[in-house]
Amino acid sequence: MILPIFLMFSFLLSSSSCNALDFCVADLKTPQGLAGYSCKKLELVTVDDFIFSGLHAGNTSNLIKAAVTPAFTAQFPGVNGLGISIARLDLAVGGVVPMHTHPDSSEIIVVIQGIIDAGFVSSANKVYFKTLKTGDIMVFPQGLLHFQINAGTTPALAYVSFSSPSPGVQILDFALFGNDLPSNIIEETTFLDDAQVKKLKGVLGGTG
Amino acid sequence: MILPIFLMFSFLLSSSSCNALDFCVADLKTPQGLAGYSCKKLELVTVDDFIFSGLHAGNTSNLIKAAVTPAFTAQFPGVNGLGISIARLDLAVGGVVPMHTHPDSSEIIVVIQGIIDAGFVSSANKVYFKTLKTGDIMVFPQGLLHFQINAGTTPALAYVSFSSPSPGVQILDFALFGNDLPSNIIEETTFLDDAQVKKLKGVLGGTG
Amino acid sequence: MILPIFLMFSFLLSSSSCNALDFCVADLKTPQGLAGYSCKKLELVTVDDFIFSGLHAGNTSNLIKAAVTPAFTAQFPGVNGLGISIARLDLAVGGVVPMHTHPDSSEIIVVIQGIIDAGFVSSANKVYFKTLKTGDIMVFPQGLLHFQINAGTTPALAYVSFSSPSPGVQILDFALFGNDLPSNIIEETTFLDDAQVKKLKGVLGGTG
Amino acid sequence: MILPIFLMFSFLLSSSSCNALDFCVADLKTPQGLAGYSCKKLELVTVDDFIFSGLHAGNTSNLIKAAVTPAFTAQFPGVNGLGISIARLDLAVGGVVPMHTHPDSSEIIVVIQGIIDAGFVSSANKVYFKTLKTGDIMVFPQGLLHFQINAGTTPALAYVSFSSPSPGVQILDFALFGNDLPSNIIEETTFLDDAQVKKLKGVLGGTG
Amino acid sequence: MILPIFLMFSFLLSSSSCNALDFCVADLKTPQGLAGYSCKKLELVTVDDFIFSGLHAGNTSNLIKAAVTPAFTAQFPGVNGLGISIARLDLAVGGVVPMHTHPDSSEIIVVIQGIIDAGFVSSANKVYFKTLKTGDIMVFPQGLLHFQINAGTTPALAYVSFSSPSPGVQILDFALFGNDLPSNIIEETTFLDDAQVKKLKGVLGGTG
Amino acid sequence: MILPIFLMFSFLLSSSSCNALDFCVADLKTPQGLAGYSCKKLELVTVDDFIFSGLHAGNTSNLIKAAVTPAFTAQFPGVNGLGISIARLDLAVGGVVPMHTHPDSSEIIVVIQGIIDAGFVSSANKVYFKTLKTGDIMVFPQGLLHFQINAGTTPALAYVSFSSPSPGVQILDFALFGNDLPSNIIEETTFLDDAQVKKLKGVLGGTG
Repeated sequence: MILPIFLMFSFLLSSSSCNALDFCVADLKTPQGLAGYSCKKLELVTVDDFIFSGLHAGNTSNLIKAAVTPAFTAQFPGVNGLGISIARLDLAVGGVVPMHTHPDSSEIIVVIQGIIDAGFVSSANKVYFKTLKTGDIMVFPQGLLHFQINAGTTPALAYVSFSSPSPGVQILDFALFGNDLPSNIIEETTFLDDAQVKKLKGVLGGTG
Repeated sequence: MILPIFLMFSFLLSSSSCNALDFCVADLKTPQGLAGYSCKKLELVTVDDFIFSGLHAGNTSNLIKAAVTPAFTAQFPGVNGLGISIARLDLAVGGVVPMHTHPDSSEIIVVIQGIIDAGFVSSANKVYFKTLKTGDIMVFPQGLLHFQINAGTTPALAYVSFSSPSPGVQILDFALFGNDLPSNIIEETTFLDDAQVKKLKGVLGGTG
Repeated sequence: MILPIFLMFSFLLSSSSCNALDFCVADLKTPQGLAGYSCKKLELVTVDDFIFSGLHAGNTSNLIKAAVTPAFTAQFPGVNGLGISIARLDLAVGGVVPMHTHPDSSEIIVVIQGIIDAGFVSSANKVYFKTLKTGDIMVFPQGLLHFQINAGTTPALAYVSFSSPSPGVQILDFALFGNDLPSNIIEETTFLDDAQVKKLKGVLGGTG
Repeated sequence: MILPIFLMFSFLLSSSSCNALDFCVADLKTPQGLAGYSCKKLELVTVDDFIFSGLHAGNTSNLIKAAVTPAFTAQFPGVNGLGISIARLDLAVGGVVPMHTHPDSSEIIVVIQGIIDAGFVSSANKVYFKTLKTGDIMVFPQGLLHFQINAGTTPALAYVSFSSPSPGVQILDFALFGNDLPSNIIEETTFLDDAQVKKLKGVLGGTG
Repeated sequence: MILPIFLMFSFLLSSSSCNALDFCVADLKTPQGLAGYSCKKLELVTVDDFIFSGLHAGNTSNLIKAAVTPAFTAQFPGVNGLGISIARLDLAVGGVVPMHTHPDSSEIIVVIQGIIDAGFVSSANKVYFKTLKTGDIMVFPQGLLHFQINAGTTPALAYVSFSSPSPGVQILDFALFGNDLPSNIIEETTFLDDAQVKKLKGVLGGTG
Repeated sequence: MILPIFLMFSFLLSSSSCNALDFCVADLKTPQGLAGYSCKKLELVTVDDFIFSGLHAGNTSNLIKAAVTPAFTAQFPGVNGLGISIARLDLAVGGVVPMHTHPDSSEIIVVIQGIIDAGFVSSANKVYFKTLKTGDIMVFPQGLLHFQINAGTTPALAYVSFSSPSPGVQILDFALFGNDLPSNIIEETTFLDDAQVKKLKGVLGGTG
């Protein structure tokens, strides 16, 4: 009595198991394509591909007193193609996530501990800026400059979710001062003074 | 006089023939990616890649007196990437397509022979349920629980079209009772009685 | 004992019932947007919005001995936004669906009765053309010229599914000869002879 | 010297401020469309549209000892169109989020307090199930049955992020037993016993 | 003999003319939605909705000696929903398009007259920078910082195409210094000196 | 002092540099997939992948006195996946781009030199046709028949941008007459006369 029902569905199930894409755990060894990585073979996928235990407290003993620990496709291949990922944000007292954009992703922050000043600037040049308390959330629309600052006297902890499994991040200071973009080009396109540009190139390891 | 016009278009046509994607017949031997399979080389593609003759009457001599015969990417590689596929549904007298979902696809049924009770339940928990006569169509929105039952005294035949070339299918009873999901977990998350769970695990080959 | 579980979900369900989009039955009186129509209010939606009984045999007593009866958004508002629609195709003996394109939709034909010659031309200028028997299916990729012809000695019946809820259709002869496109422009851009153009403008009601 | 640079950009900025869509805060009074709501006028948008402070601890004094507090478009109009949303999940000791699907959204859970048993079933009928510790994350692919259970001896707290601003939720028990779906239809399509169906209809307020 | 063929297609054509979306000329008076504007009624659409004659030479008598003249949805409603738009770029000798991003659009520049230094910075912090000669094209991927500078001794003219009908533009200096973002926040998140920030706020009209 | 800030970002940046997709320069040697080609390894990408200098004046010494020079993915791999491409159009006096469609792309033309008659036909069978002067732009919606003709007494030059990195092109005359589509099929599906069909098959190299 068990057999027939299996037979009935066998064609459908076997086709579905080798073909329909419930998920596509990234095979990070394949060449990356526009839509992400190719899928790990289904028979090799285990529950551990969908779980990540590496969002430990980051080391904030650095200049900006901040640490971002990502669970993006590279660290957490199970999110490949699912349109979502997450990261942990630790901000020591005085910690700052500098002005940056995600060229292809919106972001929601949820504050778990502490208080955080957060804001973004629209393309109409308006600032949306406020202090977030523990338990508050804020959304940062795709592609716009934004930042977060520990606004309290204790360490802050937050999780940031993204609408992409592999959100890019362009940190303004690194983009301007941490590479070989010639100083005169920076100055012409940002109106910053030569001394300012050279000072930050010094700090961030830029040349030219 | 013929040559020049060919010359004029030759660059465009050769680029288009090797590059633009009118279609992408699945090369089922390639690793599957998020957007389907890689494309069979154009010079190997024939008209037979776009035609499928395998939608024969299914064998309904089984417990549920039903058979679904798919023409999805695995059987019909020509639909890869085209956002559409189709299947044949045979329902003997008393035949049933059990409660199921397609996690990534909407569906239209067209009744060719017989009459069919069909319905779905929305996430607002409302039932949309009616008897379809020969020639009627019904649409089942993506991801919602739905079912079809032969409501007549003769065999029923229908075609079901999908908005995906490889629609997944999650059959409720198989998902709950046809694997190693522990009985106590099923009971806690569905409120079903232990006896009921164990009985259906027995029928459907589940363990645990 | 019933109440608490309802209370627990009440927030979630009420938000979901007024907000999440399982489906979006077209309110055809609203202005059409890029993604289709606005949604009929959920409390006005009934099962009949998801069922269409109007796919009757079309009248093939016309020049081309063919009739296409659509169940697109305009006739069947339940498909709005679901990425799929269907139509019935009746071809009398000698019936023809003339050369045409769907600018935004792929199509699958399933032959229910009779035999049909069907084909399409790729942008690499290759013809994919064959005779379909009853029960065969063929897929026509988006945007490419294609046609169907009754190849038998009895009427043919088919259903055609589309990957769009409102597939456009551009019938070549109507586009060229059934409007006020000046004859000299047609001739310059198609290399057709003036007599041919004027003859078909006469048949199809074109001017200029 | 300030004026000219403003003049230079005035056309671009004014067009961008009235036209380009950095974001689209939902105007919940407009009819809902396929892609969400129409946008609140830009001059009415404030920083508070992008912040939500309502993710308070839910009331878990109910049958399932669980509470889900959403920040979806209905509660948090700033996420409209941004492809992301979030909710807070409180699970008292013994608390359960019953078996359910999100027909149009993937989900990531991050465990803030306690331990949680979580799992999903694929359309190939395989169970992916494990105990999550504090700090762990798990991803649930779109449209698949999944659940969460407090696996510890203390209350559990988690945040769940979604790849949709308005994720639908179909709770299995409500879909089957909490409406007027006739008992015989449920039994035919799920193989559940009549007594089981009627018992759960009693608990969940179903009729028929 | 003409009539029948019209009758045959009348249903199809009338449905298509009121329903299928070949295009969706923006009705700029409707509320804007996520996917753009609602469509102008088809009977009001004329050829002039698809043509724009306003890409005149811009006035470069300003501080940056540059002018951008857009043909986006606000100026050219015919592109609404078509995934493409264009603008004219005039650069006097010494002219500069300052560092900026398009949060939702890629861009191709084609140089018509003169020579232009152009570049962008990737999220991996690498600079892609070169001098473009007349006739050269360059593509700037979505969401990344980029700039253009007249590198020659004569005025330069270029056209820039976008992969969005309403590309947003976030000009770095305006975003940082042309609004009420507090100076101390700018300094903390960009590492710029206080004097530099206040100087540019003075030039660009910023406060706080 | 430089080191800590680098350490802080090192995890994020290294993951982003190997994983996030700012762009995906086509590796043309990989099999083509539905979403384009796989990406060239980031360490091999240079600024020259984003620049194309091959849009030279085309040779218009041919029957139609026209030349189209494309910068599509095959010629300009940097546009892969960016939703945009461009081509140069040269029209000698009397030059014509024959009636054609792009099955998957909208197009904007900008006239650089000369005057051009341009038009398209909608699926509602309406002609949108006008003379474009130097500096005018026109948009041609996806999938619709359109054409361009030099309307002046001097050579015309234009650039055409597309909403796809690899726009297909189906030239009507080649599709009908430049292959082995049987004459009787052409005649039945286009109503063209046999003599006309055979004449154009002769010109365009068709058989059958």
